[in-house]
Amino acid sequence: MSKSEQTVLNSESKIATSESAHEISKDGAFVRQKNRFTTPFGDGENELPVEANRYRLLWAGICPWAHRQIIALNLLGLTDVISIGEANPVRTEKGWEFSLDEGGVDPVLGIRYLPEIYEKTDPEYDGRATVPTVVDVKAGKVVNNDYFKLTNYWETAWKPFHKKGAPDLYPVELRDEIDKLNDIIFHEVNNGVYKAGFAQSQEAYEKAYDTLFARLDDLEERLSKQRYLFGDKITDSDIRLYVTLARFDIAYYLVFRVNRNRIIDFPNLWAYARDLYQTPGFGNTTNFDAIKRGYNLGNHAENPYQILPKGPDVSIWNTPHDREKFIK
Amino acid sequence: MSKSEQTVLNSESKIATSESAHEISKDGAFVRQKNRFTTPFGDGENELPVEANRYRLLWAGICPWAHRQIIALNLLGLTDVISIGEANPVRTEKGWEFSLDEGGVDPVLGIRYLPEIYEKTDPEYDGRATVPTVVDVKAGKVVNNDYFKLTNYWETAWKPFHKKGAPDLYPVELRDEIDKLNDIIFHEVNNGVYKAGFAQSQEAYEKAYDTLFARLDDLEERLSKQRYLFGDKITDSDIRLYVTLARFDIAYYLVFRVNRNRIIDFPNLWAYARDLYQTPGFGNTTNFDAIKRGYNLGNHAENPYQILPKGPDVSIWNTPHDREKFIK
Repeated sequence: MSKSEQTVLNSESKIATSESAHEISKDGAFVRQKNRFTTPFGDGENELPVEANRYRLLWAGICPWAHRQIIALNLLGLTDVISIGEANPVRTEKGWEFSLDEGGVDPVLGIRYLPEIYEKTDPEYDGRATVPTVVDVKAGKVVNNDYFKLTNYWETAWKPFHKKGAPDLYPVELRDEIDKLNDIIFHEVNNGVYKAGFAQSQEAYEKAYDTLFARLDDLEERLSKQRYLFGDKITDSDIRLYVTLARFDIAYYLVFRVNRNRIIDFPNLWAYARDLYQTPGFGNTTNFDAIKRGYNLGNHAENPYQILPKGPDVSIWNTPHDREKFIK
Repeated sequence: MSKSEQTVLNSESKIATSESAHEISKDGAFVRQKNRFTTPFGDGENELPVEANRYRLLWAGICPWAHRQIIALNLLGLTDVISIGEANPVRTEKGWEFSLDEGGVDPVLGIRYLPEIYEKTDPEYDGRATVPTVVDVKAGKVVNNDYFKLTNYWETAWKPFHKKGAPDLYPVELRDEIDKLNDIIFHEVNNGVYKAGFAQSQEAYEKAYDTLFARLDDLEERLSKQRYLFGDKITDSDIRLYVTLARFDIAYYLVFRVNRNRIIDFPNLWAYARDLYQTPGFGNTTNFDAIKRGYNLGNHAENPYQILPKGPDVSIWNTPHDREKFIK
């Protein structure tokens, strides 16, 4: 976790009890809860051992923080050594539910709701049980739910298991720059849309909205000069930006009221998003239906009759883009 | 009122009591209440006499049914002979409120809330008090709230008071065609967005959504061949279509979940809408801020923290259009 993110999280005025509505500061701003399980992967004494077929990653198609992990695992070829469980995108009052599975329970862990495994791991824990969650299947316990750092572990500590020819998503010489940009993308874009959507005061909403679109304008400019955020190769930062872009027009624009522009109104961001979508690992893990259901339905949505918006057309994600023009 | 509209209204399964939420059929569809005061203007014995400085039209900037009247009065030059009162665009639990006026009461009628004058006119009336409402100031009573027919009265019965050179918005030779198109525009577009937004079942929502966009596709095609709906002159139908187009991207797309496309995604509809907006009588009576407030705020909105969406940019309504290409 970056220093400035840590500062923000440490200054939380309230810690969530059971759902996001409680993560609200006095001025009506949304302050995301701190991650509970943050032990890194590595070969140190107090680190999580990197071992094939030992862990299970739990995710849901709606969730950008979890979707990041699935993209990274796919790009790196780690899906053979880390198993994946998927919750229903519509969160229930009892938390994420494994109702997509036969019998409504995760076939490996045998749990119906995600909080069951948090409870088993730490009976004192009273925050939200979140995706992504990494479970040590042998121990039957949660070992990591640090959505911010997880992709970096797959990219570094898990290198021994990368497929042949896997991309270097977190090159040593770029790590400082990637960390800096990831921090900005986290505060202003990834979590920026949530800050707008969960704001309970006009002031907090507008602050998040203005910051978000100023940053999108900046990224639009950056992507007018190069194919990806750090030049001609996909990095960890691209995964982080992509997951928000893929959810923007079909969910955030409406549900979180971030309606200055849609992504399709930014020529470079939109072509960049399509370029990634059409890259294996991105589009094939993007479930637009799950995203729409997740943000619009469920008891947390401002949607008393549970109407699922029919639009917009997502087939346009497969239209040609012009990003190859940057290939030298 | 057209024959088919009358049929629909006669078949209402519920009559509204105090707010739109009650105008819902068994299958979750929104069925707009019937108008209470429908006596036409004219010189017949049972008609409302056409007389300068006798009537007051009450409206609110949010309301497309009322906005129609304001556009027609402006185009025809009737604002000197019919006075206008404007309610706050955010409807209160007590109905439309004249809180934009000094002291919070309409300066001519002395009422704070619109239902007061309905109550005075008909103590038995238990429907919604709606804008537009025409009040006979002398009698202090409501004489007409027939939003569907009112523009036609301004255009015909009120001809003696039209300004010199006023357009003929309802030409005799086109009336049948205009009535037919108005009926379609009413059911599928003007009220179509409300049917989608107020639907209490997925089926009713999708039916309204599909019908709406199929009709917009049809109108897009029609407007690719001519400047206005009936050729090279503005008619009553253009006023009716315009009021919905002007509210679409800034309100309906989000609030009513009609998100297949925005109007700016339809090249011809968007240029046509700007053409009208830039015509005196249209843009100068279009209050985008009132529209946004009206649809997003108030106790009827699905908006627990009363957040007013900041976007989208409305300055684009003043950008050039290419509709003069149709001028022969």
